[in-house]
Amino acid sequence: SKSTGQRVPPPVVHYHLNNLTTSTTPIENRESVLILSPLARFYPDYWENLLKLSYPHELISLGFIIPKTREGNAATSALQAAVANTQSGPESKRFASVTIIRQDFEPPINSQNEAERHKFENQKNRRAAMARARNSLLFTTLGPTTSWVLWLDADIVETPPTLLQDLASHDKPIIVPNCYQRYVNTATKKPDIRPYDYNSWQDSATADQLAEKMGNDEIIVEGYAQMPTYRTLMAHIADTAANRDQTKAIPLDGVGGTALLVKADVHRDGAMFPPFPFYHLIETEGFAKMARRLGWSAWGLPNYFVYHYNE
Amino acid sequence: SKSTGQRVPPPVVHYHLNNLTTSTTPIENRESVLILSPLARFYPDYWENLLKLSYPHELISLGFIIPKTREGNAATSALQAAVANTQSGPESKRFASVTIIRQDFEPPINSQNEAERHKFENQKNRRAAMARARNSLLFTTLGPTTSWVLWLDADIVETPPTLLQDLASHDKPIIVPNCYQRYVNTATKKPDIRPYDYNSWQDSATADQLAEKMGNDEIIVEGYAQMPTYRTLMAHIADTAANRDQTKAIPLDGVGGTALLVKADVHRDGAMFPPFPFYHLIETEGFAKMARRLGWSAWGLPNYFVYHYNE
Ligand SMILES: Nc1nc2c(ncn2[C@@H]2O[C@H](COP(=O)(O)OP(=O)(O)O)[C@@H](O)[C@H]2O)c(=O)[nH]1
Ligand SMILES: Nc1nc2c(ncn2[C@@H]2O[C@H](COP(=O)(O)OP(=O)(O)O)[C@@H](O)[C@H]2O)c(=O)[nH]1
Ligand SMILES: [Mn+2]
Ligand SMILES: [Mn+2]
Repeated sequence: SKSTGQRVPPPVVHYHLNNLTTSTTPIENRESVLILSPLARFYPDYWENLLKLSYPHELISLGFIIPKTREGNAATSALQAAVANTQSGPESKRFASVTIIRQDFEPPINSQNEAERHKFENQKNRRAAMARARNSLLFTTLGPTTSWVLWLDADIVETPPTLLQDLASHDKPIIVPNCYQRYVNTATKKPDIRPYDYNSWQDSATADQLAEKMGNDEIIVEGYAQMPTYRTLMAHIADTAANRDQTKAIPLDGVGGTALLVKADVHRDGAMFPPFPFYHLIETEGFAKMARRLGWSAWGLPNYFVYHYNE
Repeated sequence: SKSTGQRVPPPVVHYHLNNLTTSTTPIENRESVLILSPLARFYPDYWENLLKLSYPHELISLGFIIPKTREGNAATSALQAAVANTQSGPESKRFASVTIIRQDFEPPINSQNEAERHKFENQKNRRAAMARARNSLLFTTLGPTTSWVLWLDADIVETPPTLLQDLASHDKPIIVPNCYQRYVNTATKKPDIRPYDYNSWQDSATADQLAEKMGNDEIIVEGYAQMPTYRTLMAHIADTAANRDQTKAIPLDGVGGTALLVKADVHRDGAMFPPFPFYHLIETEGFAKMARRLGWSAWGLPNYFVYHYNE
């Protein structure tokens, strides 16, 4: 009873979801951001870029899911060292919390090189496994105080430091920058950029007709010559000029997950990453469709770039 | 900076989901259970029954979602008083943690009497709103250490004290007892029991054919004369004899949510409560279908009873 109690009676934690804002001025409103990264390999440049984000780190929580493989073990050690370093370094760089989850199912493909990953036949299983990883991470880390979720692949090595503020300023339920890749152009021998992620698109009549003729369990994946969809790919409509309008936003029907800002309420409503074909879409593309079914919309920023690691 | 740091650097929390068990001996394995209740009204008998659960309370976390209405405000006050009382009472009765969330959307029907709730036309909107409430609660409270989720409606006023152990002993991904209601039989003038929840069922060819002819956005709901489905309803195949086999388990295609034990990994995989028609099913029935699409199965215990409040 009261006086003999040794355990401290846990407090009742009472949250008003309706007092949580997701605004165009998230810093002023002290809005919490959860950055979620599925991670198979640790890239120091990814971590360096994360550290440079100018959103107050005390409002940022990090969550990682790492496969329980040999490569995953190495990535976990490297990540833990980076975290320990940051969390004992300058206060302004420390994050509010860091959760690392080890994944309890096998990744379907052992080889992780880009060519093997992108083979058409491998896409369905691979993306279903990625969807399950994203769901595990999301369901396990989203808390009552989270306003925003930023999905950020662990191989995104360069973004503007104002990424969170810039994306939030559009006040969209779901918003995705254009994911490009730096490379050396063999023709010009100069540094150049090229599209990387083809999963952000606007629907086409052709893709709709494709879907209608498909069996229930078939999926449409983007970026394969075997299956021309005639969708409008955000990757292809970028303006790369220096004086481009980086704030231009377009509505999207499918989104990629390399960098993706989501109002936490969209996930709370039930929007997850379907590991099964959902209107013939899967993972992040299926997520956009599911969010739409729940009444939310997805948007893309064709002229605002983030950069994927180049193997 | 190390030495001048005033904030304690937050630890890295590292979880191995694959070390989390969901076993037939959950107490011995110290498995954490999250009991989730959408709550529109507070019934003291619900709380009394919860207190009587013989599963170690220190392994049980509670989560509630309460609509932000006048009735919800009253329910919140009553719940908070009960929680405060329990958490300052005998240690063995205290729960590990309690989270109360206030829902930020309007419940679609203001009247909460049983007849109004159950009107056929009201079912789709009402159950979509319930699905969103369940998802909000789930996404917000499921943590990295949760092994099991028990969904328990706030008007379930009587269960065996061994409910958790009994359900877990079957080692099923999803398992649901038979939800009945006590009443006074007007014919015999004696206390009697009758079925309450009709959402646990096995599919029928008729329901399948109904579904095939339906528009994409139509749903099948159970228990309405307008739409005979010829499904096998668990409510109707109960053996109520004193010497019945309470451990009898049958496979189910749809489940109700009045009392429902789910391995947390089923939710982590992405199984939620679709607020939109999913294979013409919605909310808990849609959940069972979605879990099936993810490779999990649902089971029912026709002869194991829990009791719904009788208005
Ligand atoms: N947890 C987990 N993460 C993975 C797995 N495979 C890839 N990743 C990570 O998920 C993200 C996307 O995967 P990636 O292979 O880069 O996809 P791609 O760039 O679209 O070909 C990256 O951050 C990877 O490190 C996996 O099996 N499990
Ligand atoms: N959060 C929330 N809970 C609700 C709402 N409506 C009902 N509930 C609760 O959800 C559970 C199921 O609802 P109830 O009306 O009893 O459903 P029925 O018994 O199937 O008719 C009960 O625990 C209710 O207290 C709502 O709008 N929001
Ligand atoms: Mn990548
Ligand atoms: Mn009820």
